Amino acid sequence: MTARIPFRDQLLARWHNQQTLLCVGLDPAPERIPEAYRIAGANKGDAVLGFCCDIVDATAETVCAFKPQIAYFAAAGAESQLAELISYIHHRHPGIPVILDAKRNDIGSTAERYAIEAFQRFDADAVTVNPYLGEESVKPYLAYPDRGTIVLCRTSNPDSGWIQMHPPEDPVYLRVARAARQWNTDGNVMLVAGATYPEELAAIRAEVGDMALLVPGIGAQGGDLRAVLTQAATADGCGLVINASRAVLYADPDDPATGAVAAAQDLVAQIRKLQLEIAPDRAVV
Amino acid sequence: MTARIPFRDQLLARWHNQQTLLCVGLDPAPERIPEAYRIAGANKGDAVLGFCCDIVDATAETVCAFKPQIAYFAAAGAESQLAELISYIHHRHPGIPVILDAKRNDIGSTAERYAIEAFQRFDADAVTVNPYLGEESVKPYLAYPDRGTIVLCRTSNPDSGWIQMHPPEDPVYLRVARAARQWNTDGNVMLVAGATYPEELAAIRAEVGDMALLVPGIGAQGGDLRAVLTQAATADGCGLVINASRAVLYADPDDPATGAVAAAQDLVAQIRKLQLEIAPDRAVV
Repeated sequence: MTARIPFRDQLLARWHNQQTLLCVGLDPAPERIPEAYRIAGANKGDAVLGFCCDIVDATAETVCAFKPQIAYFAAAGAESQLAELISYIHHRHPGIPVILDAKRNDIGSTAERYAIEAFQRFDADAVTVNPYLGEESVKPYLAYPDRGTIVLCRTSNPDSGWIQMHPPEDPVYLRVARAARQWNTDGNVMLVAGATYPEELAAIRAEVGDMALLVPGIGAQGGDLRAVLTQAATADGCGLVINASRAVLYADPDDPATGAVAAAQDLVAQIRKLQLEIAPDRAVV
Repeated sequence: MTARIPFRDQLLARWHNQQTLLCVGLDPAPERIPEAYRIAGANKGDAVLGFCCDIVDATAETVCAFKPQIAYFAAAGAESQLAELISYIHHRHPGIPVILDAKRNDIGSTAERYAIEAFQRFDADAVTVNPYLGEESVKPYLAYPDRGTIVLCRTSNPDSGWIQMHPPEDPVYLRVARAARQWNTDGNVMLVAGATYPEELAAIRAEVGDMALLVPGIGAQGGDLRAVLTQAATADGCGLVINASRAVLYADPDDPATGAVAAAQDLVAQIRKLQLEIAPDRAVV
């Protein structure tokens, strides 16, 4: 078995060699999966797996990462299919890192179990983590230097400012950003910063140097790609993992794979155009 | 099938009829489960299940709730055994509510999936929820009025003040407490408030009236029972779900069931004595 390539190195290789910042989020809502998968599959979990594998194969050329959302698998009782999906991506598309979107956390001794769940059981290259319980709760993930720990900072949803923007003069999200920079001694830390709040994206970028940011909220949630790139790209036009889920998965209900690749290619082209505007000399070519 | 008794009513009945505020947390670390279970069980998950069922049967008389910690099951790939354990508690010990300690959360549309996981898939009576993503992320759980939504407020671990106590003059944890009171129109909301921070326990009690609090942190984490009862009990000496996990589960490695019931009975007696000191006329008798 070959040595594992660290998450950060996989990501850099995809950004620069494949020239894409796009991440496809795998949020398979059973009721939105076309009938054909449901007939073919023996159960709900198998339909979810079949659908996701088709989306993965269709969009692999266009992505820097895949991001399965564990809630969709858990609600369907499909943990074994989630493990199969991640294994499928590793074997069929080596070099594309898998971010497990789990947003869990707990006190340190329990967080160790969640790190085992994400990194050993599911073999994810990175996992999203909630910082509400403090540094002690984040450290168990950081103990895996070849895996990514992606800490929620400024999430894309409505109401997220309630804690994250409190108080205005010294908001929680910037405390998280500053701490993340300290935690990043192995280059394995990232932050979640929603496309729907471009001003905070810029403030986060100012705090964290070249740290990579996972940016949800374009597409169905209404975030603006231009604002994301101008506010938060690094000087070389990279530094971002821009996630799209629903806009790719359900682009064409009659032909999900074809719809997904078209939607993904369109996003990559839009991002590429903006990269070249922002950093014409330095953007990856 | 009989109608489900709402979480809140189950809890009140256990407090008053069974005269106990103790919750036994089921955090089965595989390496701490005695060899006998590991030999008997066909796999890691079955050993976990056998161990937990024995603890449940031994301590059922002493508890107002059981609280399985999903991280321990997930790290062992034992979701089916977790579902079996919860079903076992419902059928073997009806009237004892099950709190699924999951501390998950996400944007609203994904939080709906986590609510399905907790309440439909695992059939828990209540679930713990992380508030970092704001009110939009908590509402999907509140939509189940007969289930409990237990929101992290002031957690028991070191470093937890980093976000929760920020800023000192208007700390996040008190914002969460005030919001929880607003959310509690169906009487189905609780807060997590650690025994290790008795001053904040008192401040939370002052904010939330008679709302029940889930209090981890006694036993292995060092929280003080007297401080918990004096700072946070309601006028009738109740209002608390006091959790002990490791101190009960691993009280006697050679005979876990006997050790657990002795440790649980001792905690119940300590709590009862303090209740009678605090509210001699009104404490449940």
